[in-house]
Amino acid sequence: MLLADIGNTRVHIFDGKNVLHLSHEEAIAGYHTVPLLYICVNQAVKSHIEYLALWEDISCCLSLKGEYATMGVDRKALCLSHTNGIFVDAGSAITVDIVKDGVYQGGFILPGIKAYLESYKTISPALDIELNRECSLSSLPLTTKDSVSYGIIASIKAVLDSHKTDLPLYFTGGDGEWLSSLFPDSKFDELLVFKGMQKALKDKSC
Amino acid sequence: MLLADIGNTRVHIFDGKNVLHLSHEEAIAGYHTVPLLYICVNQAVKSHIEYLALWEDISCCLSLKGEYATMGVDRKALCLSHTNGIFVDAGSAITVDIVKDGVYQGGFILPGIKAYLESYKTISPALDIELNRECSLSSLPLTTKDSVSYGIIASIKAVLDSHKTDLPLYFTGGDGEWLSSLFPDSKFDELLVFKGMQKALKDKSC
Repeated sequence: MLLADIGNTRVHIFDGKNVLHLSHEEAIAGYHTVPLLYICVNQAVKSHIEYLALWEDISCCLSLKGEYATMGVDRKALCLSHTNGIFVDAGSAITVDIVKDGVYQGGFILPGIKAYLESYKTISPALDIELNRECSLSSLPLTTKDSVSYGIIASIKAVLDSHKTDLPLYFTGGDGEWLSSLFPDSKFDELLVFKGMQKALKDKSC
Repeated sequence: MLLADIGNTRVHIFDGKNVLHLSHEEAIAGYHTVPLLYICVNQAVKSHIEYLALWEDISCCLSLKGEYATMGVDRKALCLSHTNGIFVDAGSAITVDIVKDGVYQGGFILPGIKAYLESYKTISPALDIELNRECSLSSLPLTTKDSVSYGIIASIKAVLDSHKTDLPLYFTGGDGEWLSSLFPDSKFDELLVFKGMQKALKDKSC
């Protein structure tokens, strides 16, 4: 059975082997005739797809000990993927969630890399730059481009470092593989959300 | 003599005692008939005010050892205010600059608080929140509002903590006083930029 994680900007479809990353329009056009189990955080898209006969919303199957009422269903899925971990989903937003012995401990949200860059752009045209992903964190920047790149990367790294415990650190999402490379003992796994969905489907009778 | 620090969104005018915070329009309408020395980082405003006979741009007087070519003149002024320090200007952007023995060591830029909040809003309507400035940093959040507030505040705090040295930590700017309260040994001084301008005027013959 196909699984879909419908995010704010993209749809991620998992066929049991590979993950496809599509726009909302591409996903609906290409897959509306195929049975598919999904979770969706985009309310506008949700109101469109609830009429697709073969697509089933499995949000109600996802239950996480310690979850809070308005917690995004994709974050719940992520947190169900392993019993212990710090889970970082680096997509449109960067969500950071901590789970200990299967119980949700809390989490926080940073802007996604694209949202960070857009926000600098709104402050001043002088700050409209492309991210330098190779920007060194071992010396202080001396150019505007690196001042912005360093600001983004060093602040994400510092806040994650300040939450470091003996829990494993997992990354997923579009910028997850690159961010993971900044943390030597971390693991990137683009399937985390789907693993959480699979666990929920296995544990629940829905 | 009046001094003015013309920023991206506001004009800050110092009369030797108090600082007035005005919109660009208010500042020009209220003060164009008065002699005033200014620095300006807003190119659009700069092209308007260069025709004001009594306003003088003193950017060329501001010279900082170790500065880089495209460094904002307000950051240079800030760095001239003390011979040693970590200088945080929390306005439209949050700039962080380090000076040791009068020599600029480098710096980085974070979005300002307002820009952070706007960036979350662009990601999803669910993240359109007002900052909870009282958000606790000692326990992980369990609401969306606090997840966003914590993300902003904890990442700024963590990246500043990771640069902590024996240099004094100074804050200025609209959110400077509040941010300063998160760092026990720091000092808030809304006059830092003006002190740097005064030093430059004293040292140079311009």
